Amino acid sequence: MESLLYQSLIGIVGEDYVIADKETKRPYECDGLSVYTELPDYVVLPADTKEVMAVMSLCFQMNISVVARGAGTGLSAGALPIKGGILLSLARLNQILSIDRDNGMATVQPGVRNLAISEAASTCNLYYAPDPSSQIACSIGGNIAENAGGVHSLKYGLTVHNVYSLVVVTSEGKRIDIGNQSCDVAGFDLLALMIGSEGMLGVVTEINVKLLPIPETAKVVLVGFDSVEKAANAVNDVISQGIIPAGLEMMDSYAITAAEDFAQAGYPTDAEALLLCELDGDIDDVTHQIASVQHIFQQSGATSIRVSETEAERALIWKGRKSAFPAVGRISPDYYCMDGTIPRRELANVLTKIHQLSRYYGLRVANVFHAGDGNLHPLILFDANVPGELEKTEAFGAEILKTCVEAGGCITGEHGVGVEKINEMHHQFNDAELEQFHRIKRALDPKEILNPGKGIPQPKHCQEHRTLLASQGGNNE
Amino acid sequence: MESLLYQSLIGIVGEDYVIADKETKRPYECDGLSVYTELPDYVVLPADTKEVMAVMSLCFQMNISVVARGAGTGLSAGALPIKGGILLSLARLNQILSIDRDNGMATVQPGVRNLAISEAASTCNLYYAPDPSSQIACSIGGNIAENAGGVHSLKYGLTVHNVYSLVVVTSEGKRIDIGNQSCDVAGFDLLALMIGSEGMLGVVTEINVKLLPIPETAKVVLVGFDSVEKAANAVNDVISQGIIPAGLEMMDSYAITAAEDFAQAGYPTDAEALLLCELDGDIDDVTHQIASVQHIFQQSGATSIRVSETEAERALIWKGRKSAFPAVGRISPDYYCMDGTIPRRELANVLTKIHQLSRYYGLRVANVFHAGDGNLHPLILFDANVPGELEKTEAFGAEILKTCVEAGGCITGEHGVGVEKINEMHHQFNDAELEQFHRIKRALDPKEILNPGKGIPQPKHCQEHRTLLASQGGNNE
Repeated sequence: MESLLYQSLIGIVGEDYVIADKETKRPYECDGLSVYTELPDYVVLPADTKEVMAVMSLCFQMNISVVARGAGTGLSAGALPIKGGILLSLARLNQILSIDRDNGMATVQPGVRNLAISEAASTCNLYYAPDPSSQIACSIGGNIAENAGGVHSLKYGLTVHNVYSLVVVTSEGKRIDIGNQSCDVAGFDLLALMIGSEGMLGVVTEINVKLLPIPETAKVVLVGFDSVEKAANAVNDVISQGIIPAGLEMMDSYAITAAEDFAQAGYPTDAEALLLCELDGDIDDVTHQIASVQHIFQQSGATSIRVSETEAERALIWKGRKSAFPAVGRISPDYYCMDGTIPRRELANVLTKIHQLSRYYGLRVANVFHAGDGNLHPLILFDANVPGELEKTEAFGAEILKTCVEAGGCITGEHGVGVEKINEMHHQFNDAELEQFHRIKRALDPKEILNPGKGIPQPKHCQEHRTLLASQGGNNE
Repeated sequence: MESLLYQSLIGIVGEDYVIADKETKRPYECDGLSVYTELPDYVVLPADTKEVMAVMSLCFQMNISVVARGAGTGLSAGALPIKGGILLSLARLNQILSIDRDNGMATVQPGVRNLAISEAASTCNLYYAPDPSSQIACSIGGNIAENAGGVHSLKYGLTVHNVYSLVVVTSEGKRIDIGNQSCDVAGFDLLALMIGSEGMLGVVTEINVKLLPIPETAKVVLVGFDSVEKAANAVNDVISQGIIPAGLEMMDSYAITAAEDFAQAGYPTDAEALLLCELDGDIDDVTHQIASVQHIFQQSGATSIRVSETEAERALIWKGRKSAFPAVGRISPDYYCMDGTIPRRELANVLTKIHQLSRYYGLRVANVFHAGDGNLHPLILFDANVPGELEKTEAFGAEILKTCVEAGGCITGEHGVGVEKINEMHHQFNDAELEQFHRIKRALDPKEILNPGKGIPQPKHCQEHRTLLASQGGNNE
């Protein structure tokens, strides 16, 4: 059986592009969440949509599971390979097919890096807005799988708001074109359904993205507070005045000191919380809005306010924020990055709860996150070499996600569910709701070969499934 | 069988709320597209979510089709009853359950009128942004079924961008809660899937909508042009400068004169095309943006530019636009309102094509539409009493929609597919794509009892279906 599969795969993509030996497969054993590892039977690297169609058609016939992979920077083990299946790397589909200056759009293949789109578009004075922290490395295909956001999502939206259309290969190997270049869709919204579906409903092989004019200017306001609560309230004060900053980020004390040590960005290290509030647009508008937010921050009890004077200063202020994750890595042997979203109004409450949990578990936590979106990224600091600390960290993380759901939010922002949060899905959805997900999954992927076992847990009442998992020693539930 | 159904229905909702006699059912025989009429077996008016669940559970068991209906203002016959089935009116679910001033949201039942939400929220200085022309009458439930937009969608988005969560009753009669109050979702995006699904995937019984602060000020700029092309290009000039007006509407000559005769809004009746460009926000921003757009319109060759000085003047200018449809009704015995979307850049090309088609068919056309969104509403003027004119009008309309698809757009904006455009779906989607829709339909509505026969045509190759339709004398294909 395996040898037939192997022969068939090389018949499609050529011998050079099917990896069978263990050591060459090794780099594909995990994504950015490296606590989970597995080796696929084969790593397959198709060259184009037609080869993806042929691979999917083969796997459908032979009942072989397929995990699609972009750059492997995902943080929820969504691209974790499956034993007995293939890992479908889209790394060779790495071309920017066209940039359309007049109409503000680009057609790209899924293996193109996020930042490469903006770099290529910059000659037309355009850029692609969603900017996850990993944008140097992550691929646009992966961004679609996870509906990635970033610092600028508050004003410019998530991936789903910046994609016009997709070419998708179905689990049977058929090509479908979904979306269009207008503002609405006919039929059911397959585009929204596909974006964020973590490779479970189809394989995306071509993407038409929206490009925006590069703003005339951008300035960032760096604001210190003597309490997390005041900073959280200031976030709401800005938004409730009808101002939508390009980015509105928050950091608390461990994150501030770690980032400052690392980047020397001039952060006020005595502050308990810091906001980075960016305004962009035409110069007059930005000047006016900067004055408005300065006034709001004064009223909100800021202890320091600094506005970037130059592009270099703005870049340095952002460097601190963008390097906060690795910087926190320097103050702790290990850290675990959580990702949940809450209604913005709940920021102060939820951060207070996280600090209480931090004391309860005896684990430090650094918060660095998209405050304007209510998208939290608590980093739990721990030492995997201390027996029991990893387990305590996981329990703490689960409690944070539960807190997000209780506050009216969601167990994921932009990192996805993958393997990591599959149990936490039960906090968010009851059995009737999970059943709807499974129905959609089975409808579009009738043999359940696309990234099976990720994203959606079995309903809790499903005894058959529990028995099956117990017999497999599965770690998904 | 019927009498068992009737007895069971009155057992759920009470005798007063099941309508069986022909004359009392008559008002439900059509929606806003009154060329299609049909009587359902029963009209059922449940009081709450629990009654909807019981009705759906009953109909699922008995295999009875269910068409949900809001205010019946829809324009694509999406709420056309089905013979042998029930018409589920949600008119009694008409309560605004809560308005949350601090958090900018309202929880409402589906039968609440669109405008009633903003009226109730106005005491908190908040409003609900999507504003279809029918907002005095149309229900929020219907808005969800069609993903309604309106004049202000350019800046504030469609219904899907203004809803946090829904309570949905499934075809089997189970309650599911979808969406949340944060900016992202876990699992597949059921909320986006449900919104715009024309009652084919579930019955919405409760809605949590986003409320926005009422802008400090709003002004409208009324701009005349001596050609449609210049006006269309001016729309792109504004947007490409990074300005997002609250509304950017266009009218051409028949619409201008008809609206002016009706509303006396001071429209320049010698203009070939008119733009209404509204800016809203804080006073300084609006003043600045008004100056910017005035400059852009001068550069674009405007023949007249007028800025509203007072609220009364602004209201009068909008009155002309909002009454344009009935106003056109005064210059022609009948008119047929089309609804398609195109990429904004194609405005000039597509309008030129529509005028060519108008000459070819010998039928006048008036354009009144959301130019900023590329959402066209050509009104074809005809006389149903002239033999053959209705057929010519339908052929003309179909060609307009084909033109929209060829331009990279879509056969519907906010009016939906319903019965009206089911054939035109073939212009937009091939068989493989239609099959994906059917799979989702069957997954969430396995007996296909929810609004069957609407929205999605059978794939063209489906001989079985063609034979079936021929034997039924069906008018859906």
